[in-house]
Amino acid sequence: MHKKLFIPGPSEVRPSILAKLATPQIGHRSKDYSDLHGRILPKLQQVLYTKNDVFLWASSSTLVMEACVRNLSNKKVLSCVNGAFSKRWAQMCTANGIPNEVLQVEWGKPILPEMIDAKLQSGEFDCLTVVMNETSTGVESPIDEIAEVMKKYPDVMFCVDAVSCMAGVKIPTDEWGLDVVLAGVQKAFALPAGLTVSAISNRAFERAATVKYRGYYTDFLDMKKYNDKNQTPATPAIPQIFAMDAQLDDILAEGLDNRWERHKRLAEMTRNFVESHGFPLFPERKYCSKTLTCAVNAKGIVVADLNKELGKRGFQISNGYGDLKEKTFRIAHMGDVTDAEMKELLDHIDDILKTLPTNVQA
Amino acid sequence: MHKKLFIPGPSEVRPSILAKLATPQIGHRSKDYSDLHGRILPKLQQVLYTKNDVFLWASSSTLVMEACVRNLSNKKVLSCVNGAFSKRWAQMCTANGIPNEVLQVEWGKPILPEMIDAKLQSGEFDCLTVVMNETSTGVESPIDEIAEVMKKYPDVMFCVDAVSCMAGVKIPTDEWGLDVVLAGVQKAFALPAGLTVSAISNRAFERAATVKYRGYYTDFLDMKKYNDKNQTPATPAIPQIFAMDAQLDDILAEGLDNRWERHKRLAEMTRNFVESHGFPLFPERKYCSKTLTCAVNAKGIVVADLNKELGKRGFQISNGYGDLKEKTFRIAHMGDVTDAEMKELLDHIDDILKTLPTNVQA
Repeated sequence: MHKKLFIPGPSEVRPSILAKLATPQIGHRSKDYSDLHGRILPKLQQVLYTKNDVFLWASSSTLVMEACVRNLSNKKVLSCVNGAFSKRWAQMCTANGIPNEVLQVEWGKPILPEMIDAKLQSGEFDCLTVVMNETSTGVESPIDEIAEVMKKYPDVMFCVDAVSCMAGVKIPTDEWGLDVVLAGVQKAFALPAGLTVSAISNRAFERAATVKYRGYYTDFLDMKKYNDKNQTPATPAIPQIFAMDAQLDDILAEGLDNRWERHKRLAEMTRNFVESHGFPLFPERKYCSKTLTCAVNAKGIVVADLNKELGKRGFQISNGYGDLKEKTFRIAHMGDVTDAEMKELLDHIDDILKTLPTNVQA
Repeated sequence: MHKKLFIPGPSEVRPSILAKLATPQIGHRSKDYSDLHGRILPKLQQVLYTKNDVFLWASSSTLVMEACVRNLSNKKVLSCVNGAFSKRWAQMCTANGIPNEVLQVEWGKPILPEMIDAKLQSGEFDCLTVVMNETSTGVESPIDEIAEVMKKYPDVMFCVDAVSCMAGVKIPTDEWGLDVVLAGVQKAFALPAGLTVSAISNRAFERAATVKYRGYYTDFLDMKKYNDKNQTPATPAIPQIFAMDAQLDDILAEGLDNRWERHKRLAEMTRNFVESHGFPLFPERKYCSKTLTCAVNAKGIVVADLNKELGKRGFQISNGYGDLKEKTFRIAHMGDVTDAEMKELLDHIDDILKTLPTNVQA
């Protein structure tokens, strides 16, 4: 039995979109492909509120995170780390011999503008990496406030991993001055994995032109050269691109503001549910993600058992990430999930919780 | 109207395999995913005649070519270049600051063992890159003969790009001692683009452990760590992996020897067809690819017009690559193409050629 996915990626994909994957293949140097590619870019620019170039990468997000640090730093990268995925950005610098310093924040806490300001004042950094929505902890860092601080540092490239929130929350790329914002499509886009989207600023291309070893598959300038003619340098992930074309039509038909509102509503519903069942929110409420809720397992249930019971009913949520396994659990509410589907899941959880033993003294 | 693809990638994908792409998504840290991943690896090992580790990369082949030079050289790479795709390997070294020397051979000619032997004798190289089947020119270099020479140089990593021939011709990985053999699945595997396969030797892992800046997405050792538990470090291209599982069953059901024989037969049919129509083979016959035929446009037809007419009938072949455009044309016969389908295409070409003007004096 297929389990309906309420995990923080991959998200559940609607059958009509899955069916688009099975479109017969076309040559990636054909006019048909360029038409497809060229049809998608302006739709993505709408979703991202940007005039910047938007790229389609045949890879998961990790590759494009790595591309950021390879293309955008000649001095030192400030890597803001408050969870498993933001930590990767620091590890990528090390794996590529790129000087970097970690701004470490406790898991479950957000990255705040004053922390960044204090660091950047030294003038030693030329690139900042920050994860907007930490999938490991359910924290959304206030990128809007960080963006205000970043205006003081025009020479510092502003790279935002929006992996688990892009297409689920409003990201005004140009207003915030993001040099790179990126996301894999298997999260709030509600598409199957294998494709990553990024918007890249002109400032970023100018910087890239000064960096010597940008790599080949990761080279922003080579991507731009091909993207300008609605192609990719290497073979694109054509099935996912067919699906994205259709899904963007559906996203725009829903209406962007409606989509952002729906995600806020589902988040509120889920937060209230876990709190009212004795599971506090892991992050402070004002920094809670709008696409996934991470709750503290204060009642000492066995999360794996909850998920096993859910599985029998055709649903799946996530345990805590890494060291947070069994100490927290995560319920995703991203992509195309409706209010009714969310309520159905939560009703099942409510039902199962009545039967699960807890480790808390009465 | 869909055009049936006889271009050297992407190949035509059968509807039953396309349908597998639309399988509902599963979490990539779930048991279901590990079962799928673990089911595929031994089947790929059969296709590649290897006991080496086989990896599934969410990327096109280009990324894995780049991974080779990033993981396997501390001294200098010898890049054998006899076409557009082999040239990329040299460019990747440059883009990553990896010392390399180009062994340049004229387009249309193969890389021969004595050329490599002459170069490697200097002892300055620790990695060799060679393309088995040059998609730009239709040349198959004699990897079996090169493998004999490579036995003299156990410290030189032997990297083979088999992009447009893997799963179309026999590649006895272990017998030849290939340290890396890689291919995107949109060629002779007859799967949709977005997934790359590689087999990596233990010797290669040992070398990688001595190389400092292997990158993150490209790191062979990180891939191995996850592959050992039937996972990938980053999110995999799940739709293509579902399709590959089914396609490998079909490939093994056809029988590997039958599959190699079919490709030889289709190649012979196509070579004879073009020659008998006044188009000489671009490479010397003994070095002609078994998965695609590159013919010289000796009659001075307009290849674009031939393809336009074919398009009206629901078929597509390829023009020459880059500077060889209109000077050559390419007909692919890879993947799941049957004898009858090949004959149907060639009959159409025969028919169209009767109507196309030529530039050759009678």
